[in-house]
Amino acid sequence: MLKDELIECHNRIKPYIHNTPVLSSQQLNSISGTELLFKCENFQRMGAFKMRGATNAILQLTDEQKSRGVVTHSSGNFAQALALAAKSVGVKAYIVMPANAPKVKKDAVKGYEGIIVECEPTLKARMDSAAKIEQERGATFIHPSNNIDVILGQGTACKELIDLHTDLDIVITPVGGGGLIAGTALAAANSGRDITIVGAEPFEVDDAYRSLISGKIETNRTTNTIADGLKTELGDINFPIIKRYVSTIIRVTEPEIVSAMHLIWERMKIVVESSSAVAMAAILKNGNLFKGKKTGVILSGGNVDLSKLPF
Amino acid sequence: MLKDELIECHNRIKPYIHNTPVLSSQQLNSISGTELLFKCENFQRMGAFKMRGATNAILQLTDEQKSRGVVTHSSGNFAQALALAAKSVGVKAYIVMPANAPKVKKDAVKGYEGIIVECEPTLKARMDSAAKIEQERGATFIHPSNNIDVILGQGTACKELIDLHTDLDIVITPVGGGGLIAGTALAAANSGRDITIVGAEPFEVDDAYRSLISGKIETNRTTNTIADGLKTELGDINFPIIKRYVSTIIRVTEPEIVSAMHLIWERMKIVVESSSAVAMAAILKNGNLFKGKKTGVILSGGNVDLSKLPF
Repeated sequence: MLKDELIECHNRIKPYIHNTPVLSSQQLNSISGTELLFKCENFQRMGAFKMRGATNAILQLTDEQKSRGVVTHSSGNFAQALALAAKSVGVKAYIVMPANAPKVKKDAVKGYEGIIVECEPTLKARMDSAAKIEQERGATFIHPSNNIDVILGQGTACKELIDLHTDLDIVITPVGGGGLIAGTALAAANSGRDITIVGAEPFEVDDAYRSLISGKIETNRTTNTIADGLKTELGDINFPIIKRYVSTIIRVTEPEIVSAMHLIWERMKIVVESSSAVAMAAILKNGNLFKGKKTGVILSGGNVDLSKLPF
Repeated sequence: MLKDELIECHNRIKPYIHNTPVLSSQQLNSISGTELLFKCENFQRMGAFKMRGATNAILQLTDEQKSRGVVTHSSGNFAQALALAAKSVGVKAYIVMPANAPKVKKDAVKGYEGIIVECEPTLKARMDSAAKIEQERGATFIHPSNNIDVILGQGTACKELIDLHTDLDIVITPVGGGGLIAGTALAAANSGRDITIVGAEPFEVDDAYRSLISGKIETNRTTNTIADGLKTELGDINFPIIKRYVSTIIRVTEPEIVSAMHLIWERMKIVVESSSAVAMAAILKNGNLFKGKKTGVILSGGNVDLSKLPF
């Protein structure tokens, strides 16, 4: 039973993650015409929901696998998440990053004792480097979003939200690689309640929107968005879940993302990254869908470069 | 009994304020060597602890006084606090502000239906304008910090913190007009526990530091600090309380304030104003005092102009 798997997953990772607070804002309720409940994964360990999935994936390994470590390729939040999750469990984490990745991202991974393996800045080079570490070290590759243990882990954020607020009508998440929304959809579907799952995506990287229409995984032609966590694409494990459970994906423009980010910072007094603001932008854009409803919003993360804000 | 007064005050204002969350950060604990518990008044209604004192002062008025309204002079958080508190209770609030106050501050007061009365940008003009409204309208003047009902109200933030965390060794607050630290000290003193009260102040406006040494209320010669909420000076009602209960005031430099503000935003993912960061800067500066202790930090507010950040 999937429901039991979710509960087991949650119990498994609980000691390693925060049950993040749920915040609300009368001002944002009034502006949006919906009752919003924000699940603050920006307060999660290492600053994003990715900690959940990374932890669950590592804890599912055998002792022998654990002794040989894990490997992923990411220059974003999953790099830090896998490093910190591995450190917490006492496992080595090899993180393949492009040599030109920002120093601040590399330092964050090093801060969590991740072993950085540099490569050329192409997808092929990243995959080759990771494959090499798998072969040479026997490390287990953990995909940032297209891995069922990762997906289940990400779903625990929604599970905690639903456990606390049992009468949600809608849950909305941003869509990047698809791990968060797939996990969220599973958690909602298995809650026994009728919850509509909505995705939010920048127009500039609307691969998931187009994938839902065409029925197959589409790719992005450009990645020209401020929401740098959402540039990745769906995978063969999460897409069937998304296709089955996600009712719609709302697309937003870059100015709408910046404006929603500013609104959250200013009114809620919390630091969220641009990818998180995409969900709020979608609520403001498509007001009718949410009007009079009780809406859960997964604020995916809070890792931003404070010296490079868009406002 | 003061203890009963505090409890009554808290019960009186509860329906109008948030019992704000208490957050912690393993990273900041590790950096500071102390266990820090942050009372997040940046999440308070209108974004600062001032809401507490303003509400308590208004609720203590007679019905006749209420019918004639309240008046204060402030261009900072107390202006918004009095306007919102008055609106919540159904009372008129006249807010005397210098004509050259930033539009964003005026708009915030108007947003809470405060009646702005503009005057010349001098202390004398502000006091004269407020006195005129007292005479002509019969409105009750409410001082932002030198008023016992305001002081008791501000103390409820510390009371909530102590109620939740019964084993605090130290509570630290920034010091501006003295209302917050005086209220905090009363709440701590009346908790029946042995809690050390520490103040934090910018070197640039160290009037409270000097007042504690000289034993009389000192004034500021300059007000050249980023912590714009701390430029005001102590009053004859709060100073005796501060003198009796505050064990020390730590002074910090402007770069230390900016650095502490950056640290809180980056690690805790919350928006706090520079005045709040002064307390964190003091903890980092005077590490030995806090080492190994359990320290409550009142994060006073989160109202910042996001387009004018110091980093």
